[in-house]
Amino acid sequence: MLQIRSIFYSVLVMGLFANGAFANTDSVMISRIYHQSFFKGEAYANLRYLTKDIGHRIAGSPQAAAAVQWSKKLMQELPFDKVYLQDVKVPYWSRGAKEQAIIVGSGEKLNVLALGGSVATPAGGIEAEVIEVELLSDLRKYGDDVRGKIVFVNKPWDESLVETGVAYGLNSAQRSRGPAEAAKLGAVAYLFRSLGSGIDDYPHTGATRYTQGIDSIPAMAISAIGANTLSAALKHNAKLRVFLQQSCAWKGEVLSHNVIGEWTGTECPEQVITMGGHLDSWDVGEGAHDNGTGTMGTLDALRTLMELGYKPKHTIRLVFYMNEENGVHGASQYGLQAKGKNENLIAAIESDAGGFAPRGFDIKAGKQAIQWIQAYWKPLFEQTYWVSRFLEGSPGVDSGVWGKYHPKAMMFNFRPDPHRYFDLHHTDKDVFEAVDRRELQSGVAALASLLYLLDSHYNRIPD
Amino acid sequence: MLQIRSIFYSVLVMGLFANGAFANTDSVMISRIYHQSFFKGEAYANLRYLTKDIGHRIAGSPQAAAAVQWSKKLMQELPFDKVYLQDVKVPYWSRGAKEQAIIVGSGEKLNVLALGGSVATPAGGIEAEVIEVELLSDLRKYGDDVRGKIVFVNKPWDESLVETGVAYGLNSAQRSRGPAEAAKLGAVAYLFRSLGSGIDDYPHTGATRYTQGIDSIPAMAISAIGANTLSAALKHNAKLRVFLQQSCAWKGEVLSHNVIGEWTGTECPEQVITMGGHLDSWDVGEGAHDNGTGTMGTLDALRTLMELGYKPKHTIRLVFYMNEENGVHGASQYGLQAKGKNENLIAAIESDAGGFAPRGFDIKAGKQAIQWIQAYWKPLFEQTYWVSRFLEGSPGVDSGVWGKYHPKAMMFNFRPDPHRYFDLHHTDKDVFEAVDRRELQSGVAALASLLYLLDSHYNRIPD
Repeated sequence: MLQIRSIFYSVLVMGLFANGAFANTDSVMISRIYHQSFFKGEAYANLRYLTKDIGHRIAGSPQAAAAVQWSKKLMQELPFDKVYLQDVKVPYWSRGAKEQAIIVGSGEKLNVLALGGSVATPAGGIEAEVIEVELLSDLRKYGDDVRGKIVFVNKPWDESLVETGVAYGLNSAQRSRGPAEAAKLGAVAYLFRSLGSGIDDYPHTGATRYTQGIDSIPAMAISAIGANTLSAALKHNAKLRVFLQQSCAWKGEVLSHNVIGEWTGTECPEQVITMGGHLDSWDVGEGAHDNGTGTMGTLDALRTLMELGYKPKHTIRLVFYMNEENGVHGASQYGLQAKGKNENLIAAIESDAGGFAPRGFDIKAGKQAIQWIQAYWKPLFEQTYWVSRFLEGSPGVDSGVWGKYHPKAMMFNFRPDPHRYFDLHHTDKDVFEAVDRRELQSGVAALASLLYLLDSHYNRIPD
Repeated sequence: MLQIRSIFYSVLVMGLFANGAFANTDSVMISRIYHQSFFKGEAYANLRYLTKDIGHRIAGSPQAAAAVQWSKKLMQELPFDKVYLQDVKVPYWSRGAKEQAIIVGSGEKLNVLALGGSVATPAGGIEAEVIEVELLSDLRKYGDDVRGKIVFVNKPWDESLVETGVAYGLNSAQRSRGPAEAAKLGAVAYLFRSLGSGIDDYPHTGATRYTQGIDSIPAMAISAIGANTLSAALKHNAKLRVFLQQSCAWKGEVLSHNVIGEWTGTECPEQVITMGGHLDSWDVGEGAHDNGTGTMGTLDALRTLMELGYKPKHTIRLVFYMNEENGVHGASQYGLQAKGKNENLIAAIESDAGGFAPRGFDIKAGKQAIQWIQAYWKPLFEQTYWVSRFLEGSPGVDSGVWGKYHPKAMMFNFRPDPHRYFDLHHTDKDVFEAVDRRELQSGVAALASLLYLLDSHYNRIPD
């Protein structure tokens, strides 16, 4: 059971007057936004279409092209002043046939996924002995023994961190740079323990890249259970051989697009607030949390404000970025083109950390700006809406990339609860059913409320 | 994807020195607690036994008795100074055979559960016409027409509230007091739309009680889908009849127990901090979030501190309360006995709001105390552990009841994320599988850290 003696009305009244003259209007508007989002929100229904009817959508794929066209149509149904596609050339990487990893002799199969960007094995596969390490730096002691072997990097997820994004970051370089490092030492393939928090049999893909001039070797992620199995087998027989086979390949450059909707500002139309997330996904699961919730959520946040009759002061530009997962070419293109046109991109709101219960925003801005936001905006969210994280932090990947061309833009990175995100991120488990409607629409309301505050208070925020 | 440029180490360093002289020790201790809980926590494994091997456990039932004996054994395995059972007489209500609700004519079955404490229908069931209202007060306009009818209270869940506990509270009086009100007007049975947030076919039980001197009538909860079906059928035919049957009954008084473990304080043993949750559950599902996580979580919080070699200044008393769901006799008994012995109960920490991602604590204390906690404790949790809710609020049900005898006790009510709790609360969906290990152990760490701070800083907290 749970008892909450209703302090609801006193909270409402406090909220109305606690924060100075403009808080009353804000409190009422935010209440309307939450009501609209929970009762009339369409993010969940749109997410169902994106994940179930289109499916996963790696940049360059037919599904990504379908997602672009469908998203444009979605935006055209709303009262944007302009909806358009922005050309982005993307490299198309295709997984090919189902990957194989088998312990020779026992015949035990290990669940693997090619790492994004990897080359294929020779058509007949590779069979070799295995060197297991936790860190690439441990390879040094093996010297020339690495030659001809499969390097198996088996570093477990750091379970001690609530901030699972930090656990992810701690080991991502071994995924992206490891194969090239192992190749330098003569390894024939790279087997990488999945960089996810799930202790299960679902391998976790993600980008890897080869250093120019170094031979590239096939790189695979192995599930946590597969990694444990292989590690145990190696303890029993250090000379065991593993057979690996995959047929993934780069398919060349494909013309794709960022999908953009513009809602022209009524007072400062030349000042642009960019909101959005990436439309592409990895080619496993359905890209539901990563990043169906980010695109469908930011679209629904704008729709919510439109339906409430809000008129923005600044131009609000919704951008569905293409190719965040393996190149970030969409965000680069967006930033470059805006710079070319001398556009004034004053701020960004990005959603690319899943659709779990909203916790707040990491903010890239001056210290005074952050303190002002903590003093004036946080109280509007904290008690009633359970959104309380307004801390200095990094922008999202896409905003971070285009922000290099627009360094003055203030950036907000939406942060949902992080506990379970990496259980499904980049795996077959990232499907529509893993998203909860109430949590998603609560996030939409938080995004719409932040956008409303940013647009209406922008001139008051200190530098 | 998600990128977090690691500000982890700077956060750690800031945390160490930001809050005055004692923050260094605290920050290190809390880090050790989280590490211990995530890597070595046993709450999840214990919860599995409680839910799967013992199952749901309404007060007075054989399962509740089994849970008492097993809990005592669990506590005896830990270095408590004393483990004992405290006698509590509880009323035992038993559901009997599976309830039936059928639309006469169409034969359509509606999913129902007897409300806890309800009487049975006559053995052959009841068949009657139905009056549908949203609020009991709407019944007035029906006057004498209510006589002989089934009253169907069909008030939908308020979807607009993030604080789902408030939505629950807004309508709980219609569940607990509605049948007696309907009986006064001559109704023959009470059909109540489930007081949960799930739009599904799982009815939600909970306590009802009859006013003395008023005839009691059978009371049932109907699932949200069942309520929608019945409402639609009534719009088509206002004269339709519904057949109801249930065989629940009070089985008299049973001797049960609070389960108590005491860890004696090294400096102020006569000052007692009470921590715990209720051991009983409703007789559906497995009582996993309500309240297996609260009992297994608080036990594991103490175990975590014990394993880290902590020595409490004050006596820490772990109490598994009996009969929170339909009487709160365990907490009453605990409060009365402590008052009889003139014990000094200085504080309470209760966990009874589920095992989702921890958000913080509602605090019942003086304003200065709460401000002090916000200034000194909150920064130890907020950035690194994502626990940031330290707001004035109500105590849990059990602490609230015993607190009447000990009004000076400072009270902390653990608050996990509220978005999904009432989707499963009091239904067949409240099972072990609905609990996530990382979220549960994150809550254990938050509880252990708060207990550590409360015990070690108690004398510093202003009145």
